[in-house]
Amino acid sequence: MDRKGKGQPITSWTIHMIFRDFLGKRAGLIKALTTDYERFRQQCDPQEPYMCLYGCPDETWELKEPPDVPHELPEPNIGINFARDGMPEKGWLAHIAIHSDAWLYSYAFYIAIRAGLDAETRQQLFNMINSNPTIYEIVYETVKMPAKEETSSESRKDISSS
Amino acid sequence: MDRKGKGQPITSWTIHMIFRDFLGKRAGLIKALTTDYERFRQQCDPQEPYMCLYGCPDETWELKEPPDVPHELPEPNIGINFARDGMPEKGWLAHIAIHSDAWLYSYAFYIAIRAGLDAETRQQLFNMINSNPTIYEIVYETVKMPAKEETSSESRKDISSS
Repeated sequence: MDRKGKGQPITSWTIHMIFRDFLGKRAGLIKALTTDYERFRQQCDPQEPYMCLYGCPDETWELKEPPDVPHELPEPNIGINFARDGMPEKGWLAHIAIHSDAWLYSYAFYIAIRAGLDAETRQQLFNMINSNPTIYEIVYETVKMPAKEETSSESRKDISSS
Repeated sequence: MDRKGKGQPITSWTIHMIFRDFLGKRAGLIKALTTDYERFRQQCDPQEPYMCLYGCPDETWELKEPPDVPHELPEPNIGINFARDGMPEKGWLAHIAIHSDAWLYSYAFYIAIRAGLDAETRQQLFNMINSNPTIYEIVYETVKMPAKEETSSESRKDISSS
């Protein structure tokens, strides 16, 4: 599963291995969407086939087609290149950032569950992951959210009336 | 985004709405892989096109092709049907169960981030989610993991030497 060929079976991964993998992939994704953004954006040609943005454990990133199905591991959002010219650039960037966050969660917990981490250890893993800002927060250079429909700066903990 | 047409913008979802959505989808997925398993299994014809198992907020499930890209929301693992006859049945079921768990995490936190939940509120959401056994644990009718390479019943918290 490791793109650099370590080849350790997923079932033997520890919480620390999962977290290190998460941090490496996250750093790569942040690079793609900040310092390397122009290069990344150019590569997302809407005329190309379906593309996915992968973060790699060594803090690099790759933009490429997903592998043939069936997939063993969770894959990033597919076809991000198609939307590049079809929506406002800031919205497109936010879309990719949030999908990247979602992919990191799914990847880390896919491994955690396969490796047999119990509820308490999954909780510890989440605490470690959540001690870092999301990629979306990083991309916007602040841990405040950009303007939304609502102006309240407080997180929504209210009970829905729906 | 809601399959039943509530149509509430994602950015206005509260932690409780996300959790309710999670519970509904989870219940549907558990049904597909337990009480409805034979029907689900039959529908996973390897001769059919790529298929995904969706849990729905109303505690039902659907097996269908993913929508055309670009996707707005995280999609479940694609092409689960192709592997039905290509691996041991128990392994196939475990594969789908864990991918379903991973999808639920990615879905819930995709919405959480888009809705602007801060780190503390994301933590609360994870606590709520993690207070339930994973689908994988449910499918195996126990919160203990099935036999793995290692026999230790303790979760792996040790620091990797790799």
